[in-house]
Amino acid sequence: MPLRSRLFLPVIATTPKGASVDSHKILLRGGYAMQTAAGMFAMLPLGKRVLDKICSLVSKELDGSEILNAQQAAMPSLVPAELWKKTERWESAGSELFRIADRKKREFCLGATHEEVFTDIVASAVRSHRDLPLFLYQIGQKYRDEARPRYGLMRGREFIMKDAYSFHVDDDDFASTYEEVNAVYSRIFDALGFDYVRVEADGGDIGDGHSHEFHVLSNLGEDTLVHCDKGNYSANVEIAAKRNGDACTAPGCSCGGSGTLIERKGIEVGHIFHLGQKYSAALGATFQSSDGARVPVTMGCYGIGITRILAAAIEAGCESGGCDAFAWPASIAPYSVLLLPSKSAAPLLRDVYERLPSNVSTSVVFEDRTDVSRKKQAAEIPLVGYPVVVTCREEGAFTISDRAAGAEWTVSSAEECASFLEKNILEHENKQE
Amino acid sequence: MPLRSRLFLPVIATTPKGASVDSHKILLRGGYAMQTAAGMFAMLPLGKRVLDKICSLVSKELDGSEILNAQQAAMPSLVPAELWKKTERWESAGSELFRIADRKKREFCLGATHEEVFTDIVASAVRSHRDLPLFLYQIGQKYRDEARPRYGLMRGREFIMKDAYSFHVDDDDFASTYEEVNAVYSRIFDALGFDYVRVEADGGDIGDGHSHEFHVLSNLGEDTLVHCDKGNYSANVEIAAKRNGDACTAPGCSCGGSGTLIERKGIEVGHIFHLGQKYSAALGATFQSSDGARVPVTMGCYGIGITRILAAAIEAGCESGGCDAFAWPASIAPYSVLLLPSKSAAPLLRDVYERLPSNVSTSVVFEDRTDVSRKKQAAEIPLVGYPVVVTCREEGAFTISDRAAGAEWTVSSAEECASFLEKNILEHENKQE
Repeated sequence: MPLRSRLFLPVIATTPKGASVDSHKILLRGGYAMQTAAGMFAMLPLGKRVLDKICSLVSKELDGSEILNAQQAAMPSLVPAELWKKTERWESAGSELFRIADRKKREFCLGATHEEVFTDIVASAVRSHRDLPLFLYQIGQKYRDEARPRYGLMRGREFIMKDAYSFHVDDDDFASTYEEVNAVYSRIFDALGFDYVRVEADGGDIGDGHSHEFHVLSNLGEDTLVHCDKGNYSANVEIAAKRNGDACTAPGCSCGGSGTLIERKGIEVGHIFHLGQKYSAALGATFQSSDGARVPVTMGCYGIGITRILAAAIEAGCESGGCDAFAWPASIAPYSVLLLPSKSAAPLLRDVYERLPSNVSTSVVFEDRTDVSRKKQAAEIPLVGYPVVVTCREEGAFTISDRAAGAEWTVSSAEECASFLEKNILEHENKQE
Repeated sequence: MPLRSRLFLPVIATTPKGASVDSHKILLRGGYAMQTAAGMFAMLPLGKRVLDKICSLVSKELDGSEILNAQQAAMPSLVPAELWKKTERWESAGSELFRIADRKKREFCLGATHEEVFTDIVASAVRSHRDLPLFLYQIGQKYRDEARPRYGLMRGREFIMKDAYSFHVDDDDFASTYEEVNAVYSRIFDALGFDYVRVEADGGDIGDGHSHEFHVLSNLGEDTLVHCDKGNYSANVEIAAKRNGDACTAPGCSCGGSGTLIERKGIEVGHIFHLGQKYSAALGATFQSSDGARVPVTMGCYGIGITRILAAAIEAGCESGGCDAFAWPASIAPYSVLLLPSKSAAPLLRDVYERLPSNVSTSVVFEDRTDVSRKKQAAEIPLVGYPVVVTCREEGAFTISDRAAGAEWTVSSAEECASFLEKNILEHENKQE
């Protein structure tokens, strides 16, 4: 049961230098994160809570899919160069790859993605078509030595990703997993309350060409997406250009018969790839088919940017309602409720606080500081992004404000207030923890 | 509800080359981990489950302490060289430190510990004595380029640690936190069922001399501990030698008047340090005391080797009952129960399985493979280390075996069996998840 006075929450009143976008400002000002080097951030307790909630949400949806049968693993960050040499990525990755040598001059990279390591595991563990399909994932640090790390946690050099890899006997089997990942990703981005779009994308270096991206629509987006207003064609502008031979991919161009292309900006938060046999052939990940032949497994890979979701959720919130009214989506709020008493009503709200069962009250903060002005206390609300704030007048009228929805309820006793919070606001906490 | 056929559990029948100690053998044979380079391991789903349970146990005990008011953070693995230069560890750490340069030739190390980063955060976030004490921790990867990585996951080069740092106005305040960490650590190692000892230790490079280690007693231990059979003096032999001026620290020497020194071997799983002002003075982490002066904060740091606990639990289990009877401590078992049906009784055990509520059944494995011999199925039991195995005869006599305790219960219906498991075996699952 967190008392505000006991939380390490180093809030900064003014905007720190160098923070140009909303999410970066709020993450620094709210005491979520602190920069340690260009594109690298220490996550402070508040930021860590949000990251943990994003991770649980992603794991819960992946683990909940009977079709995927997802199983979580954890790879080392240090990946032997030999593995990347076998797939020729050691050469092609260029200067975005952090490279390091150990005391015996053996070369490693800091994993930017982990196709090689997972494929190598499958090469030694999978023998027969009966061992397939297989869906493995991890949530952990990733490293990319970006030339221009920017926008705070949006494009960093060390960040958290969920990366998943699937292994199949053939493309048909892969296709049903790919479809299910699409469904799971939609559930995840729905739970985050994102206004997002799935677009056809360029597989880039990783895959064999067939891939889709998930974008949160935002003015800050670094990707340009085109969408046909008649029909459901959506694509990253790069792939649209390829498809149309650069004919016309600008907004206003015609598409799908009588349709018109609309352009939007998106923040990429997910990317799924058909890998085919690129990695399995290079690393010898084969299985014995029913006719006895050794066949390279068919693969897919599926990423979600955990750290980027943290930043994108703030951008989306600030764009829709302004940063001064920022509230986290309930599913990933670091704290769900702030109990904010006026001086004389403190005992009444403390009563509410003490009536909450311990499994949900970990997400409720009680403002107990008497040496901080009411104005300063209130200024913290959009920084911590509490979805719900409860205030109370002396005579015992409790006001429960849902900041995002703009709704307000009034109840007249501490008991009623605690019970309302437990049933209507904190009901998901119980399931998560 | 895991069906055995759906688990990625690549069990190996024979002992892999190069695995010399019990924990290393079981971790490779049971499909917990796979080696990717010297001293580096990919954690497969089974090993990941154990690590996660160790992490939750450690977090739960830390978070549960009102005195500590512990708050979890997450630091980047890449730590700027400048920070380590300020504390002179960049030079003193030598070749155990992994060093790396980015594309702009800026130097970093891969965090071996994170005193510098946490102290730097406190330097910018803490202003006054009212911001203290502060207790921050993280659970994450650590890196040490060991000259001789060995014993599998016992002494690796990339591993998981819980590292905590505390910040105080003075030594008195530090002392009460230090005492509470001792109590919390004892609760953690008790919950793991370890036969452990706390000894006076050498602070080494990290601290200012005053420190204690927690050791699991094991023949495999790399540390030699001396203990006085009269009185409660226990020390690492290195510090005992310093204290006694090398006089007599061998077993059989006299101590504490009429006592005799006894020697034991220990696996270090925890280490707590008084850091004093070493880091705070170097990094400018000061607070304004009540008389207005800027004073460097007094610090402590507190480590627990998460990956090492995984290995130590296996060593301890194998030493006490033999590897062929290995069972995980209930608190960290990857799966608590195996339902192992004979062919004809499969529907009866499946009935038990289906009666278990979903919040506890995630820890129960149902052996459903019909193409694997009963002998092979049974051979997996000590590798997966199930604490409890349930078998069933055709007519419906269910036998519940607690493998570690050697106890057995018989019940006569699936309903009774499910209810027994839920109440007596799986009661902690509910709390954990």
